[in-house]
Amino acid sequence: MSNTWNAVVIWALRHGPRRPGRLREEIGGIRPKVLTETLRRLEHNGLVTRRAYAEAPPRVEYELTALGRSLLEPIGAFGEWAHDHADEVMAAQDAGAG
Amino acid sequence: MSNTWNAVVIWALRHGPRRPGRLREEIGGIRPKVLTETLRRLEHNGLVTRRAYAEAPPRVEYELTALGRSLLEPIGAFGEWAHDHADEVMAAQDAGAG
Repeated sequence: MSNTWNAVVIWALRHGPRRPGRLREEIGGIRPKVLTETLRRLEHNGLVTRRAYAEAPPRVEYELTALGRSLLEPIGAFGEWAHDHADEVMAAQDAGAG
Repeated sequence: MSNTWNAVVIWALRHGPRRPGRLREEIGGIRPKVLTETLRRLEHNGLVTRRAYAEAPPRVEYELTALGRSLLEPIGAFGEWAHDHADEVMAAQDAGAG
């Protein structure tokens, strides 16, 4: 979990299955290549499953596994920390730069 | 917090101030250069303070700030997750490789 995108993509999947295009919209600022690599890595680690539907056009969705869902709580705790303390971190950075 | 060493070093400081040499021993497998860079980054972000004592030989210690201590809970939640689920992640990796 040392790659920030892992946590971001898992968090974006918290409400259920998503197509890559929708994930990109919800996340914002993630390049398609990086999203693809991240999803592949999460799948490899058993955190996400990929479903391909034989439709026209073909549809692909990604969903958290039970293992992936078990990460939502620690990721949420970090997100909450970042939200609560971002200003203190930035103040420290400014103080150090001055 | 996208760098794993940040979390590792903060966790190693959870019981109180530590000299760099002691931190290296407790962490194990961190190169001195990487530890120095990590401590500098944590200090820059207001998570750690550095104290230099005018002794012979000079003594330097690092300690968590209140902001740094506030990260112990989310980091601990991640550590607990990793401890509880490492085998499942490795099983998924093996299944994908097979």
